[in-house]
Amino acid sequence: MSLIVQKFGGSSVADAESIKRVAKRIVETKEAGNDVVVVVSAMGDTTDELMDLANEVSSNHAPRELDMLLTAGERISMALVAMAVRSLGHDAKSFTGSQAGMITDAQHGTARIVEVTPGRLREAVAEGNIVIVAGFQGFNRSTGDITTLGRGGSDTSAVALAAALDADVCEIYTDVDGVFTADPRVVPNASKIHRISSEEMLELAASGAKVLNIRATEYARRHGVTLHVRSSFVPNEGTIVYNPTEGETVEEPIITGVAGDLSEAKITVAGVPDVPGKAAQIFTVVAAADINIDMIVQNVSSGGSGQTDISFTLPTAEADDALAALKAAQSDIGFSDLALDENIGKLSVVGAGMRTSSGVSAQLFTALFEAGVNIDMISTSEIRISVIMRADQLNEALRKVHTAFGLDSDVEAVVYAGTGR
Amino acid sequence: MSLIVQKFGGSSVADAESIKRVAKRIVETKEAGNDVVVVVSAMGDTTDELMDLANEVSSNHAPRELDMLLTAGERISMALVAMAVRSLGHDAKSFTGSQAGMITDAQHGTARIVEVTPGRLREAVAEGNIVIVAGFQGFNRSTGDITTLGRGGSDTSAVALAAALDADVCEIYTDVDGVFTADPRVVPNASKIHRISSEEMLELAASGAKVLNIRATEYARRHGVTLHVRSSFVPNEGTIVYNPTEGETVEEPIITGVAGDLSEAKITVAGVPDVPGKAAQIFTVVAAADINIDMIVQNVSSGGSGQTDISFTLPTAEADDALAALKAAQSDIGFSDLALDENIGKLSVVGAGMRTSSGVSAQLFTALFEAGVNIDMISTSEIRISVIMRADQLNEALRKVHTAFGLDSDVEAVVYAGTGR
Repeated sequence: MSLIVQKFGGSSVADAESIKRVAKRIVETKEAGNDVVVVVSAMGDTTDELMDLANEVSSNHAPRELDMLLTAGERISMALVAMAVRSLGHDAKSFTGSQAGMITDAQHGTARIVEVTPGRLREAVAEGNIVIVAGFQGFNRSTGDITTLGRGGSDTSAVALAAALDADVCEIYTDVDGVFTADPRVVPNASKIHRISSEEMLELAASGAKVLNIRATEYARRHGVTLHVRSSFVPNEGTIVYNPTEGETVEEPIITGVAGDLSEAKITVAGVPDVPGKAAQIFTVVAAADINIDMIVQNVSSGGSGQTDISFTLPTAEADDALAALKAAQSDIGFSDLALDENIGKLSVVGAGMRTSSGVSAQLFTALFEAGVNIDMISTSEIRISVIMRADQLNEALRKVHTAFGLDSDVEAVVYAGTGR
Repeated sequence: MSLIVQKFGGSSVADAESIKRVAKRIVETKEAGNDVVVVVSAMGDTTDELMDLANEVSSNHAPRELDMLLTAGERISMALVAMAVRSLGHDAKSFTGSQAGMITDAQHGTARIVEVTPGRLREAVAEGNIVIVAGFQGFNRSTGDITTLGRGGSDTSAVALAAALDADVCEIYTDVDGVFTADPRVVPNASKIHRISSEEMLELAASGAKVLNIRATEYARRHGVTLHVRSSFVPNEGTIVYNPTEGETVEEPIITGVAGDLSEAKITVAGVPDVPGKAAQIFTVVAAADINIDMIVQNVSSGGSGQTDISFTLPTAEADDALAALKAAQSDIGFSDLALDENIGKLSVVGAGMRTSSGVSAQLFTALFEAGVNIDMISTSEIRISVIMRADQLNEALRKVHTAFGLDSDVEAVVYAGTGR
C-alpha cells in the first residue's frame, strides 16, 4: 500500500463545487488502494478578503495577529474538504498545522519549518481516515503561537509532510497539466516535461517558472521527496520531479526548459572608485538591508578615469529599499550616481545535460542575435544560463530560443481555467 | 487595579467599523486603569455563512469537522479586534479557546466546560497586554480536538474566564441598555432593572427573557461572578446581576420582571390508563429521546372512565422527536391519542420578594382575567409563577400584567440597532 500526499491550492477549493470535485479526486486515490494525506490552501479569495479586513481595522499589522487571522482560511477549507470526503462514504479528519506537528521557528509571516512530528496524522491514517491538513501554517513551541510559512507555504507544507511521513509521492495539484518546457501562455508550442530532476526543477523555479514554489522544490530535493505536478481539472499524468540517486546515470536532454522572469529590476551604481574592496562594501550595505541579489556585473574601468560602474539585479519589490540603503552609504562608498531600471527581462535555459555538452551558450546567443535581442548581463550555473534583456523583447526571445533548442511540441499546450495558487 | 472581562457578541463586531468602535470601548476601560480580558463572538453572519458552505458540501455533518469549521469565525474576529486595539496604541494578544485553557468534555457542538486553565492569559495580562479570547470554543484533552459550547456559548466563555481569573466583573455587551422589567419591544414602558439577583435573572432567562443566556447566568450564579449587562452602543450603566452573600438581607421588590415565551409547544397524551406508573413511563420515554420538558399537567381522571390525559410543554423544535418517541411506545404505554399544540404562549412573573409576600398569584390571575386570558397550565417555583395561554393573547397579557404589578416606567425604553447575539 502506498502513502500519497496530495496538495490542492486555493483555486482548486475556491467554492463548494470545487471542494466536492477535489473530494472525489481524493476518494478515487483512496479507493485505488492508497493511504491519503491531503494538504489544502485557503479557499480562493479568502486570504485576500481577510487581508482587506485587516487593512480596514489597522494600518500596521502585528505579525502574530495577522498569522492568527490568516490561518482561519485553511481551517475553513480543510473542514469543508473533510466533510465533503465523509459525505462520499469515507472516514476523514482535518488537522491544523499545529495538530499536524508542523513545528516552525517564531518568524511570523515567513516561518521556517524546524521539525515535523506527525504522530496524530499517522494514527488517524492507521485508523483508516483520509487525513486533511491545513497548509501554510505551523506552530512555534517556545512561544506557543501560530505561525505562517509565507508565499507558497502550502506547497512546502505538503512536501514537508511527505518527507516526515515517508510518502511514496507528493502530488501537487495545479491549474496546468504539469511542468512545461516554457510558459504555455507565452510559448504556445511548449511541451509537457514528463520527468525532470529536482535540480533542474529548482533552477527553472528560481528562473521564474511559477508552477512550483522554489522553497518547496528545494525542500523536496533536500529530503528526497518525489513530486508529481498535475492538473486538478483532468486526470492526465503530469510531471514527475525525481531525485537521481547517487551515481545513477540518467540520459538527460541538454536543455530541459526555458523560463522568463519580468519581476526583477536592475540597479546601477555609477562612478565607483576603482579600488579594491568597493564591491564588497556595496554588497555589504545591500545585504544588511535584507535584499536578495540575483546577478552582478562590474564594468571594466573606462580609460584611466579611476572609476567603474557596478550593476546588479534584484526583485523589483525590493528596489526602493536597496536604493535607500545605498543612498545612505553614498559618502562612505564614494560613488557618484544611482540608476534604477525596472524595464528588464530575464531569460534562462536550464538543462542537466549542459554539464557534459558544450556549445549551448553559442547556440543560445545565436538564437538571441537572430531575434534581434541585445544581451545586457549574463550569469551561469552548472546547468543554467541566464541573460538579461529589454523587458519588451522577452516573450519573442523565449519563443525563438524554445524553437532553437528543439523544444517545440506538435500540439498547443492547454491551459485550464483558474489562475494558480 | 480591577480585572474586567468584557464580552462582545456577533452584532457588536459585525464589520470593520463595529470592530473599531469595540476596540475604542476596550481601550477606554484599560485607560481607566483596569486590566482587560475580552471575549468575542464571530462577526455578524459568519457562522451562518460557514453553515451554508457546510450544507453545500455535505448533508450529514461530522460534529468534529463542524466544530473545526465554525471555530474559524471567532479566530477571525479576535485577531481583528486585537489588531484594532493595537492600532490605538495598546499591546494586545488574541488567544483561541484552546490557548486560553478552556478545557471541555468531548461533546462536539454542545461541549461543557470542565476546567479553565488561563495561565497564558494571566501571563499576557501581567505583561500589560489587553487579552482577546475567542468565545464559544474549547478543547478536549483526551481527544486533542477542538470543541464548541453551543448556543450562547460566548456568554458562557466570558463568565467561565471571569470566574477562573477571579475578575471583578464580567461585562456582557449587547444591543439593549440592560435587563428590563419586560421585553421593551412588547412592553414599551418596560423599565431598566438596575440590580437583579442572579437567582431572579436565572428565572427570567429560563422564562424567555433573551438578554442573557441561561447557561451563562447559571455559571455566574454557581461561581459567584458579578455580571454587568450593558449596551455596546451607548456608555450608560446597564444592569448589575449580583450574587447576594450568605445571610445578606436585601430589600427585594416583590416582582422584578415579567417575561414572555413563544418558543414552546404543548403535547397532550390522551386516554392514558389511570394506573400508577403511567406518567413515569411517559416521561421516561421522552427523557430517553433527550427532550427538555418544561411544565406538566395531569388532568383529573374523568368520571370513572379509568383514563386520564397528561399534557406537557417543551421547545417546539423538539416536538417532532417527542411525538415520534411516544408513538413508538404507544402500545407499551397504552394511551389512545397524541395531540400537538404549537399555538401557546408562556407568561412568567419573577421576583425574589415572592418568598415573603403572599397574594402575588391572586394579583396575577386577576390581571389576566381582566385581560380576557384563559389560563391553560400553571407552574410555580419559589420566586416565579408561569402560566400557559393562547399565543395570540401573550403580548397584551404581558402589558397588562406589567402595569398591574406597577413596573411601568414613565419613559419608553430605547431599543438600539442590531438583533442581539
